[in-house]
Parts: sequence; structure tokens; C-alpha cells
Amino acid sequence: MPRALLFCLAQQAIFSESDAQWMRLALEAAARGLGRTSPNPPVGCALVSEGELVGVGHHARAGSDHAEVVALREAGARARGATAYVTLEPCTHHGRTPPCSEALLAAGIRRAVIATLDPDPRVSGRGRRRLLQEGVEVATGLLAEQALEQQAGFRSRVVRGRPWVTVKWAMTLDGKVATPGGESRWISGEAARQEAHRLRDRSDLVAVGSGTVLADDPALTTRLPEGGRDAVAVLFDRSGKIPLDARAVRPGTVVVTAPEQAGRWSERPVRVLPAPDLEEALTALASWEFCNLLLEGGPGLTSQFLAHDLIDEVWVALAPKLLGAGLPPLHGPQRPLRLAAELQGVRSAPLGGDLLVRGRLHPVPELTAAEGGG
Amino acid sequence: MPRALLFCLAQQAIFSESDAQWMRLALEAAARGLGRTSPNPPVGCALVSEGELVGVGHHARAGSDHAEVVALREAGARARGATAYVTLEPCTHHGRTPPCSEALLAAGIRRAVIATLDPDPRVSGRGRRRLLQEGVEVATGLLAEQALEQQAGFRSRVVRGRPWVTVKWAMTLDGKVATPGGESRWISGEAARQEAHRLRDRSDLVAVGSGTVLADDPALTTRLPEGGRDAVAVLFDRSGKIPLDARAVRPGTVVVTAPEQAGRWSERPVRVLPAPDLEEALTALASWEFCNLLLEGGPGLTSQFLAHDLIDEVWVALAPKLLGAGLPPLHGPQRPLRLAAELQGVRSAPLGGDLLVRGRLHPVPELTAAEGGG
Repeated sequence: MPRALLFCLAQQAIFSESDAQWMRLALEAAARGLGRTSPNPPVGCALVSEGELVGVGHHARAGSDHAEVVALREAGARARGATAYVTLEPCTHHGRTPPCSEALLAAGIRRAVIATLDPDPRVSGRGRRRLLQEGVEVATGLLAEQALEQQAGFRSRVVRGRPWVTVKWAMTLDGKVATPGGESRWISGEAARQEAHRLRDRSDLVAVGSGTVLADDPALTTRLPEGGRDAVAVLFDRSGKIPLDARAVRPGTVVVTAPEQAGRWSERPVRVLPAPDLEEALTALASWEFCNLLLEGGPGLTSQFLAHDLIDEVWVALAPKLLGAGLPPLHGPQRPLRLAAELQGVRSAPLGGDLLVRGRLHPVPELTAAEGGG
Repeated sequence: MPRALLFCLAQQAIFSESDAQWMRLALEAAARGLGRTSPNPPVGCALVSEGELVGVGHHARAGSDHAEVVALREAGARARGATAYVTLEPCTHHGRTPPCSEALLAAGIRRAVIATLDPDPRVSGRGRRRLLQEGVEVATGLLAEQALEQQAGFRSRVVRGRPWVTVKWAMTLDGKVATPGGESRWISGEAARQEAHRLRDRSDLVAVGSGTVLADDPALTTRLPEGGRDAVAVLFDRSGKIPLDARAVRPGTVVVTAPEQAGRWSERPVRVLPAPDLEEALTALASWEFCNLLLEGGPGLTSQFLAHDLIDEVWVALAPKLLGAGLPPLHGPQRPLRLAAELQGVRSAPLGGDLLVRGRLHPVPELTAAEGGG
């Protein structure tokens, strides 16, 4: 049944191929908010009446309207009797705007298709139940994996109290990220470098260690043909080696350092985060409402993240060349092969002349407790 | 024109999609001889009369019938008026059997489609001309790239006077082939390991350096569900470190060593190859009629091959895991990024849970001189 594919999920909900098409549209809308909505999740909503799209919206940034509200505004009276496709369960709490579940009910939505439930166990399932109470037909779980991926940062912050950490590097086919002297421009081609900037554009934080600052002095800005959004730079500098005038030192930059080194930065417009270890640093960053962190090395810092099992996702641009002598992407921790960290959900695709290989070391958090759902 | 794809080549020959299908069949037949035909090339032949396959054959091993002869025997009288699809230009020389071009003419072939011309410039184009002289319609160049790939070893021996060298390793996504202590069992999964044995099965020679013998003492045999053929083991042991009772030491094994170390092996049933450097060792191996060599490491030997630009093809099984501390597939030579060796014709595909990435550092030799062809 290739064209009329049916999705049968745990909840026994049955989805048609056209359901999937509209949810994909909602996911595409949500994607426009990636990197812009923290501490909120990116969310998309498509409203469909009699097979026709009558409204579509996404949450553009924290403080702006929720996706459902944007879509309902576009649909106007045509929302009556429509199906709402939302990438995340509609909220039930009163914030800056009235709860989205109430807005959907007021507009006369007849059916709601929800990709994922709210990750907060205290509210998960509530939006769904509210709609059901009022006679709306509700189905959940459609394209949940794609939605979870978009919401990884938000879910990590809410459920685990730390940002979702993605590490990326560009590596030759013999496993080198730089020459022995530290030359790394350029391992990968233009397309892979642009993808790296796209990753920065979608990240709240972009982090490097002191070794990378001393070797490359990266600006850590986002440079895309269409512009792009700069992530907040995070400089891990336990022992106070980073020059005060490094290029990434700018208003808003976070310097993670040992408590005794915090004073070095008193004259600079940076946020100093004194933290005894990486876990505490990440916990603090999440408490500052940052949802995701892009780790750009170098080997020392990345090895520490791996040693503490703090890497959630890996992006490797594999350049089809052999360098010879060179530096590895990480040089620790030391452990037997059976304890190597295995990636899940591995995907690979050509990217210009390179190969992009991605995967996760941790699942995207769904719920902190078994409660909620269903 | 997706289904009726036409191939228009330098020779102005036009091929139909059905031509391509029959040539693929000939290539599949040829593939059965991979690793078994040295010093000859693997060749396949399909005979097609009125849209029907009337004979197919391949060269099974040196000394056995050529592909055309096998196919003609199957076709019998039905070869008259047929089209012959051959992966390599039919020979014109009198060897153990009469020349294949004469056999095709005697059988009454009306048309010949040839993938590649003979790489020896003294004979290249002769088989083609002989057929043309007798009024056979001849077209060359169909699926030439696939045919060249099958004939890489033969062409390398004939044109360059050295074996085609393929290096393979299994590597984690952080670029490690073993733990710091040398543990490498197993980086990759069962499917990738089986593919590695398939590579051995198709290689004349399988080579390692003394470091690998001392660390792993590999048997270097071919272990496949269907059995498989053992390649001849080649042990690179410049300084005489390999124990005389290493597992790969067996009748026929080649030990490449410094001239002053040759005496160590006098009591063993091995062929000692005293060679001052890698180039001379490879030249000698080609003169012994070996066409291709599979290099299985370790890092020291592989680095030397790369430093001397002796690697022709690279197969990497990329395991989607992060190890941490570990050994790289190669640690030299030292050079700037712009001088890294770039792979051509890169292909990647999932292989079990791993990713197989392949490419060439050198083109398959076609001809030593501009003569011949056309």
C-alpha cells in the first residue's frame, strides 16, 4: 500500500497518507523556528478543512504567538470543522496568550492530530484530554520521531535540566580533524561548511574549549548566504588560558571557568559561569533557558564531554581524502571497544563532495515519568 | 528518456538500454572470476540472438578457456548472427587456445559490443580491427567504467608493472582502528567483516606489516559462509621482527624483507622477497604475476604506502560509534591539508550497521600510450 500508507501506532490511532502530508507541512513550519524559540520549543500547526489548507503557523520566537494562534488567525471562520495538525500537544496553561487548546476549541476545530505530547509530566496529556472532553477527535503520535528531533533541545532542558548537546567535526577518511600543527582549513568542502553554519544558526549556544581558541581564535558567528542568527558563544576555559580579547569574546558570550578564574573577566561584557565540572556548567546553562548547545571542539573538550556521557548527537562531515599525520577529533577517554559509545538512528548522505554522517548517543527525552501519554 | 536511455560515447557508438542489460550480464559473469584469473583479467561474455541469451561464459582461471569460448560452446549454432557482449576486447594472439576474435568470426557473430579495449598498447584495438575487417559491426565503451574496475589488477600489472593496491580498514566515527592497546576485535559488525573476507577472496595477495603480525598474529585466510579462496599472504618485515611461526607463515607466503634479513627464512616454505623499498617489492610481485594486493595494515605500513603514493583504492568500514583514545588507521606522512590525497569515484552504502565508504586514489590504467583505441 505504498501511496495510501497507513500508520498504526501504540495508541491504535490510524493515520492516512494525507494526514502525514499535512503533518509534514506543520513540521516544516515548525522548523522555521529552530534556534529562535528557546526556552520554548519550535512548534508548527496546519489547519485543513475539506482537504484544503486554511491556515498554517509556527512559533517564531519566545514571546510571540504560538503556532496554533498564528494558524487560526489565518484561517478565520474557515477553522470551523477543520482538522488541526500540531507538532506538539496544544498548551493548557495561561501565559502571555490564552491556552492554545481553548483557542482551538473556540474556533470550532473538529479533529486534532498531534505529533508528540508535552514532555512535562505534570501537563503531558492535558491538552489532549481537554480537546477530547469537548468532543474533538484526537489522534497522537503521527511523525512523532521527526517532531521529537525538532524538540530535542526543549525536551532536554525540561526533562533532564541540561541542553541537548550536538558535537560536530569535519574529518578526513583517515580520521583526522587537523594537521599535527593544527591546520584545519579546510578539511571539508563548501557545502559541509555551510551546513555547519546552519547548525550554528539553529543552536542557542556554540561552544569551544581554550585549545581551539588559542589555535584558531574562531569568531563563532553564523555566516550563511541568507545571513543567519549568531548563537551565544560559550568558551570553556577552566584554567584561564583564553585571551581577554579573543574574537568570540563579545557581549553575551558565556565563559565557563573554574571559580578562582572568574575574576579575570570582570572588565569584560561576558557572563562568567564558574562551574566545578561540565555537568554543573550544563545545568546552569539550562537554568539560563538555553536549550541546545553545539560543541565544536577541540579534542580535549570533546573527549571530556564523551567521558562524562554528555554528548547527545554527533554530526561528522567526512571528507574523502587521506591526510596522514594529524589530530583526531577526540583522544579520550580510554576504554575497551565494548564500551565505545554506539550511535542510534544513524543517517548518512552526500553533502557536496563530503559525506555527512549523523546519529544520536541518547534518545530525545519524551517524558520524565510514565504518567501522561495515551 | 529514463527507460530507453541511450549511451553516446567518444567513439560515437550508440547503445540501447537492452545493450546495457546484456553487458551487465557479461560483467556479472566476469565477476565470478575475480581473484581467480591472474595473471589474466576476469572477462565475461554474453551471446544474444534475436533478443534471447544463447550463451554466457567467463574466464574462470588462468589456463582455462576464455569467456568467449565458453559462451560460444553453450550457444553452438545459435551463435550465427548473434551479438557478442564482451567486457574486454577479444584477443588476437595464439595462446593455449586460438584467438577469441577468430572464434567469434568462425561462429558467425554479426555484432560485437566491447566494454574496454586491451590495455597493452601493442595489441589494443587489434581484436576490434580484426572483427571490423570481416564485416562485424563493432561498438566499444559500453559500461567501460564497471569493466575497468573489474580489470584494475590486470591493467595495473600490465600498464604500470605493479599490483593494484587496495587498502581497507574498519574505523570508528572518531577515526580509531583500535584501542591504544591494539584491541580491534571488533570495530565493525558481522556484515562488514564478511565483506572484508570477500575482498580477500578477490585478491591475489593480502598484506600486513610486522606490527600487525606482532599485535594480532592474523591467519590472513578467507573465511566466508561459502568457503572462499585464500589470498597469498605477504608479510612486510623490513627489520626481521616477524616470528618464524606466525600463523600467516605457510607454503606460498611471501616475506618482503631487507636483503640482510633474508637468511632468517631459509628453513621455512616461504618465498623471500628481498627489496630495498616498497616500489621494488611491488614491481617484483607484479613480475611474479600477482595483479592485486589487499593491504590490511597496520598504521605504519599503510602510512609508508601512502607516503610513496602506492595506494590505489580505499575501503573503509565506518562503525557508528565513538571510542575515545585509540590508534588511527595511519599516522603519516606529515603534510599540509592541500596535499592530502583526494579520493575519486567515492561511493558509500550501509553495510549491516556500518557504513562502507570506497574510493580510488588513482584511475584504473587504460593504456600506456595514446596509440590503439578508436
